[in-house]
Order: sequence, then structure tokens, then C-alpha cells
Amino acid sequence: MNKTFEKLQPYLDKSMALQTARALFEWDDQTTAPSEAADYTSKVVGILADEYMKSLINDDVRKLMKKLQDNKEQEEMNDTEKAILKQLHITYEQLESIPPEEYRAFNELAQVANRKWSKAKKDNRYEDFAPYLQKVIDYKKKIAGYRVKGDKKPYEVLLSDFEECFGIKELDIFFDKVKKEVIPLLKEVSKKADAVDKSYNYLKYDINKQREFCKYLSGYVGFNFNRGVIAESAHPFTMQLHNHDVRITDRYMEDNLESAMFSIIHESGHALYEMNIDDAITQTLVGGGASMGMHESQSRFFENIVGRSKDFWEPIYGKLVDTYPENLKDISLDHFIQGVNKAAPSLIRTEADELSYPLHIIIRYEIEKMIFDNEVSVEELPEVWNKKYQEYMGITPSDDAVGILQDTHWSWGEFGYFPSYAIGTAVASQIHAHMLDIMPFNEYLREGNLTPIREFLRSAIHKYGATKNTNQILKDVCGEEFNADYYVKYLKNKYEKLYEL
Amino acid sequence: MNKTFEKLQPYLDKSMALQTARALFEWDDQTTAPSEAADYTSKVVGILADEYMKSLINDDVRKLMKKLQDNKEQEEMNDTEKAILKQLHITYEQLESIPPEEYRAFNELAQVANRKWSKAKKDNRYEDFAPYLQKVIDYKKKIAGYRVKGDKKPYEVLLSDFEECFGIKELDIFFDKVKKEVIPLLKEVSKKADAVDKSYNYLKYDINKQREFCKYLSGYVGFNFNRGVIAESAHPFTMQLHNHDVRITDRYMEDNLESAMFSIIHESGHALYEMNIDDAITQTLVGGGASMGMHESQSRFFENIVGRSKDFWEPIYGKLVDTYPENLKDISLDHFIQGVNKAAPSLIRTEADELSYPLHIIIRYEIEKMIFDNEVSVEELPEVWNKKYQEYMGITPSDDAVGILQDTHWSWGEFGYFPSYAIGTAVASQIHAHMLDIMPFNEYLREGNLTPIREFLRSAIHKYGATKNTNQILKDVCGEEFNADYYVKYLKNKYEKLYEL
Repeated sequence: MNKTFEKLQPYLDKSMALQTARALFEWDDQTTAPSEAADYTSKVVGILADEYMKSLINDDVRKLMKKLQDNKEQEEMNDTEKAILKQLHITYEQLESIPPEEYRAFNELAQVANRKWSKAKKDNRYEDFAPYLQKVIDYKKKIAGYRVKGDKKPYEVLLSDFEECFGIKELDIFFDKVKKEVIPLLKEVSKKADAVDKSYNYLKYDINKQREFCKYLSGYVGFNFNRGVIAESAHPFTMQLHNHDVRITDRYMEDNLESAMFSIIHESGHALYEMNIDDAITQTLVGGGASMGMHESQSRFFENIVGRSKDFWEPIYGKLVDTYPENLKDISLDHFIQGVNKAAPSLIRTEADELSYPLHIIIRYEIEKMIFDNEVSVEELPEVWNKKYQEYMGITPSDDAVGILQDTHWSWGEFGYFPSYAIGTAVASQIHAHMLDIMPFNEYLREGNLTPIREFLRSAIHKYGATKNTNQILKDVCGEEFNADYYVKYLKNKYEKLYEL
Repeated sequence: MNKTFEKLQPYLDKSMALQTARALFEWDDQTTAPSEAADYTSKVVGILADEYMKSLINDDVRKLMKKLQDNKEQEEMNDTEKAILKQLHITYEQLESIPPEEYRAFNELAQVANRKWSKAKKDNRYEDFAPYLQKVIDYKKKIAGYRVKGDKKPYEVLLSDFEECFGIKELDIFFDKVKKEVIPLLKEVSKKADAVDKSYNYLKYDINKQREFCKYLSGYVGFNFNRGVIAESAHPFTMQLHNHDVRITDRYMEDNLESAMFSIIHESGHALYEMNIDDAITQTLVGGGASMGMHESQSRFFENIVGRSKDFWEPIYGKLVDTYPENLKDISLDHFIQGVNKAAPSLIRTEADELSYPLHIIIRYEIEKMIFDNEVSVEELPEVWNKKYQEYMGITPSDDAVGILQDTHWSWGEFGYFPSYAIGTAVASQIHAHMLDIMPFNEYLREGNLTPIREFLRSAIHKYGATKNTNQILKDVCGEEFNADYYVKYLKNKYEKLYEL
């Protein structure tokens, strides 16, 4: 180990411990903590966040980082150390340029803005949220301004926090292709899909049986219960303390069979990624997934490409029918597969099918670009939103609650986040295309043998954590960098076959 | 606020945040974390423990503490600040005298010793645990040696960590009285109690129904579900993050009705204490219960004095019978009350009845004294243990698993802890005697109206947290300091009435 890097280690360890504690508080808040705890617990979490900042942003660390830039030092570092140092520079770039008091003020603003958003959504009153959204946007513009370098746009600074390989140029190319192909395809598919009777999905499904079946599904795709747990929360999510402690949640609704099942497969995809990261890098700055986009690629790979395929359900659909014979005994596997893939233009992103999903993302991306290019005011946002839904989906939100107010992200200042959902979906298709070339993928699914699929992902992607970025991973695995053609091809093939277009 | 004290505040806040994080990790480990997490999570917890030490034990804090000893400074401090400062001095005394590397080494030793104990108990092999117990004892003797002052004995240093008002002298007086009165009483009672048929308790009791009824019981005694949660763990316990987040656990056994019910009442007693501590002192060094003994007084007050009384069950026994009619429809309330108070000499402390319980404590206390007076070797401990059980209870453990190996405390180095259980029980009786004088206590129970009882405890004891010690509380509430006569009187009255002696 490089001697100078060794001196960094205690600072890195301390920051890791504080981040892990913050993660546990977050998990606990979402799954366990009593309702009145938050006001007092937030004091604790605030102090831990400050200490985290101080553990990294200080003169000692700064000097060591500078010293490690020497050629001689670089030669003595191994690849993991280099990757950690690179990540440390990114973290520094994110944190150091922001005055601590502004950072703290924003965290407080975000808490308020989120509560205001939550209430405004319930009341369907965008105007109540608008002043807070304005403040959040002003802050993000200011921060992005501090951090912007060269001829980059402020929005690109925000995008880079979630996915370093995709700037505005790359996303424009990607999304133009998707718009050109998906909008007409969706129109065609939805005409046919309208005829699929999906009423079986909305019958009464016992919650305890759902819990049990979802646990089974999670284990079936490979969730390791010695290294992870499943809990419940208002919105399903994944969170890890390290590679031996990865937690997922689900939400169960009595009148919806699909919701919890596909959520658990989705979260299990995230969890497999984290569980498979090498022991040598867990609890380091590169000990998590490579990026938001790569993470979504794994969850969506399992949820959609694997989880909504007929081959996946062939060995286990009988078990599902046996669990709810009263509802499913007359629903054939083909009927069920058409049901879980029923596609149509829609208003709500989180409930969207695989085909309309990218259009939801594109609308948000285009609006975010406009916001950070100062082309739209906060007051005009609902109108712009509704126009874009009409243009791309052919439908207009009946009110703001199912329109501009539907997502929580902006209230937290998470601009630049949405594109990673679409990137992940496309990356998943690209990896899937490669797997079809090198292994009897569908046969494995039909045999109920997911081990080779999981093992491929582990050794090709998961184990590296964040030591490689998205394009490096794709290049090493598939032989080429990101290419959205695979995604478009996947969607066309799938839906043409499913609905005999 | 005193200006110098104000400068202490950030150090106190930081140490509070780190302690709260450690508490959450402990809770999570016992209730949620997956089995393989511990090795990695312990790294995090170790770093947080080090940071906690550093947050308090440093030159800045030391200087401020010294300055605050000035008369002028003392005059400017309010009572809460004084109490916090006193507690800080105690914490300093505990931590500062121990070299950090020894402290860390002991924490590691304790982890190993606990695992060895757990295995040795399962295998009934004391000899496998003995070498580790020897190391733990050696360490505790060394540490107590560092801390001992004046003519105190090393064992008194350890006792004072759990209950500052009770040294060897006080405990000897207390326990001599108990031995003199309880040993003959237990003999008499057990002759009669033998005739009580308690087989109903060991029938099949559905676990889900137990969960539900125990939740009801907890709410019935006053657990506030907006400020607390109930979970499950191998051994029931209480843990608080602050007064708005107090957590208890229970353990359910299908073939035992009583176990989970009285555990939940016991833990609810601890929880009420923590929930009722004043907002002004929560999240400070005096924001928890006054001592181990006072804490046990509240849990045992609810579990035994309230929870095992006929008056308590009168309004709710019907609900219990309705929950399990198949098992309880022929068991009268009187029969049930005799069952839950069935007393007899016994081998296992945690399963002991109210009457034999103090004898278990006395045996441990006497052995601990011998250990720290170098009057017994680790090899001789099982023999000494068994002799004392024969002497006080008239029975001898059939093996070490139900003898010297039964408790976890020594493996963690927790010598001096056991007496606080007995102190708590006696304190509860003393407070109970006072309450009988000033309110229609039994009438309240029969009416199912626990509010005045709880409110009395809140305003007389709970709200003060650790700003007063046990004797100060007793003096203020009952007009006299600790007096074990109430305890002996309570036991005699109760059992003479119950079994018509």
C-alpha cells in the first residue's frame, strides 16, 4: 500500500462510519421509527452530517490528496487506491465548493420544501409549492454555478452527480432516438393492448400471502437472506450498510397483485448488485454501485427484462396460481404475461409500463433543461408539463396532482436524477443483448436456473463496485460503449411479438 | 446559560449524537440486521465508539470542566447544567482512567468472551469459558484498581457504575434483611403453592394472538405508540434514542402464555420512564433514567406490583379469556392470579418468581464480592455457586448450564450489575407503599384507570431523568431514603394473603 494513501485511511474510515450511521438512521426513519421521533432525531442526524463533512473536508486530507497527485506517488498506488482517490476528488468537488452554511441552509430548505410538496400534492395546489420550488431551483442554480467549469452548462454539473458518462449531448442523442421510435410504437401497441382484460389484477389479494410470495420471489432471483432483510415502507427502496448488509423494502396493496411483486424483483436487482460487490472494496468510497444509471440497469434488468418475460414465469406461475386459486385459476400464463406488459400512454411515471416509461423521463429531462437554461419560470411549469404530455402521450393531466406535482425529486433538489432511470433501462437492454449471444439465457429462465445469469452479472459488473464507470463497464462487458440501439430493438421485438403487430 | 458551559455544549451534543448512533446500531443488531452483517458493522461501531471517547476526553473539555469548578461559575449555573456537569465528571472518571488501547482491547475481549460463554452454555462446558472469564476478571480488577480511591474496595467502583447510592455496606444490610425474612417465607409459600395447577400456562397459544394481546397490554399500561415501537428479539429489552423514540422488544413462545405478557409489561415500565423524561433534558447526559436500580424499580413496579395483582387483571382478564377461550374458559381469575404468583425455589434467575428472585441476586452478589476480594478462583466458582443454591434455595443445579453459566453478564464484564435488580424491586415496594397512602391505588387498578398512577410516577420520578439520584428521589417522594422494610413487608403481606398462610 502507498504510504501516503495509508495516512488517508483513518479519514476515509471515519467518513465511512459516519455515512453508514446516516444510512441506518435513514433506513430506520423509513421503516421503524415512531411518528414523533423525527424532530429530535434530526438533531442527531444533522450533527453526524456535519461530522461527515469535517472528516473529509479538512487541511490534512487536502494535503494528502495533493501529495498523491505526484507521478511517483501515482506509480506506487494500486488500482483500487486510484479509484478511491478519484472518487474522493469527485466528493471534494461536490462538497468543497459549497460554503458549509449554505449547504446546511439548503438541507433545511429541502426538508421544508418536501413537506410543502407533500401537502400541495394532496391538496392539488401547485401554487402552495411553487414559492419553495423557486427557492430550491435558485439554490441549485447557485451551487451549480459554483461548480461549473469550462464551457459546461450548469445542468450538466447536476447530471454528472448521478451519471458521469452522460452530458446533455449524449442524452439528446439518446432521447431523440427513443422519441422517434417509441412514440409511434406506443400508439400501435396501446390499440392492441386495450383489448387485454386485466381485471384479475385488481381483485382481493391477501397481504400475508403477498408478503410470503414476494419473499419467495426475492430469494428466487438470488437475494441472500444471510446478508439482507426485507421490510416495509411507504415507497419501496434499497439501502446498504455494506456488502453483507443490504436491505430492501416493499409495499403491499390488497387490491393490486402486480405492484408488490414487481417492486420486490426491482429492489432485489439493486440488492444483488450491492451484495456482490467485492469484500476488498466494500466500506470504501468505491464500495457501492458504479452510478445511479448502472444501479437502475440492474433493477430494471430483473424487473422488466427478466421479470416480465414468459420464460421467467414458466417454472413459477403455477405457484402463484396455487397461492391465489380463487383469482387466478382461469388466467393462463399467456394472459398473465400480456397483463403484466399491458402498455398505454399514461400520466403517472411510477405506474408506467415499460414502453411509455421513457417518455415520462424525456418530458422531465426537457423541462429540467429549460429550467436551468432559464427558458421557463416556475409559474409556467404546469402548462409546459401538460403540453408535453399531450404532445408525447396524447393525453393531458386532469390536475397538477397527477401532473407536475407527482414526483418527490424536485422538492429535494434532485435535478438531473431522472435521466438515470432511462439510462439504466437502456444499459440493461445492451447487456441483455450481449448475454443472449453468449449463453442460453431464455433456457436458463425456463429451467428456473438463474445462477449463471447472476454469476455473469457478478463477475462482469457487480464485483467492481464503482471502480469503473458506466462506459468502462459496457466496453469491458459488451465490447462497445453505451448504444441505445439495443434498447429500441428490445422494445420493438418484445412488443411486436407480444401483440403480433 | 453560563457562558463557559455554553462552550461545552458542542462537545456534549457531538457525544450525544455518537451515543445515539451506537444505540441505534445496537437496536438494529438485536432486532433487524442480517446474520452475516456483524463482522463488517462492528468496524463502523468501533469507529463511532472511538469518536465518542474523543468527543469528551480531550483537553478542551478538560479545561472547561476545570473552569466550571470555580465558585463564580457555579453560581451562574442552573440546576440542569450542574447535574449535567456532575454526570460529565462521572463519565470522565469512568473513561479517563483507562488507557484507550486497554479499553479497546477489553471491548474485543468481551466480544470473544461472550461468544465463548454462549457456546459453553450450549455445550454445558464451563471449562471452555473459564479461561476467558479469567481474562475478563483480570481486566476488571485492573480497571477497578485504576479507579479506586481512598479506602473503597475495587468491587465498590464497579457497583457505583450502576447505582451510586449503594456500596457494600448498604447492600450487606439490605441483603441480610432479605435473607432473614425471605428464605423461611419461601419455604412456607412453596409448600402451599405446589398445589396450584398451572398446566393451563403451557398449552398452545397462537403467536399472532400473543403479539396482539401484548401490544394491547403495553398500551393499557401507557406505552405511547407515537413515541415508541415494539419489535422482537431473542431477549426482551428497552432502548431509547431520546424521549420521543423509546423502543421495546418481546419474545413469544407458543407453549408459554405468561412469558411474553409479563415481559411486555416489564419493558413498558422501562419505556414509560424514558418517555416521561422532560423535553428540556432529553438528549443530554442526564436525559436517561437516574440509575439501573431506579430503572428496574419502574419495570418491576409494573410487572410485579401492578401486573401480578388481582386488581390489575380484574377489568381485563375477560379479554384474555376471550382471546384464548379454548385454554382459559375454565380458569378463574383467582386461579390465574395464583398461577402468575406461584412461588418456589428455582435454579434460573430470569424465570424466577417474585419471592425467590432476590435470593438469585444475593448469591451472585456474594460471589462477585468473593471474586474481587480474591477469595475464590475461577475454577472454584461452579462449586461455590452450587453450594449457595443448596444453602439458600435447598436445591442444587444439575449442571453448569443451569448453574454458573446461565447469565450473560459476566462474559461482558458486567460485575456489580446484578444488585441493581434487587434494589429496583425494593425501591418499587417503597414507592408503592407511599402511593397506597396518598391515592386509592387499588381502586384505580380495578377501574382500569392507570392514568393517575402513571401521572404520579411521571411528576415524582420520571421527568427528572438523572438530575437526582435514587436516594434523592426517594427522599423527595416518600420522605425517607432507601428502606428495605417496605419490600419485606410487601412480600409478606402479598404471599400471606395469596396463600392464606
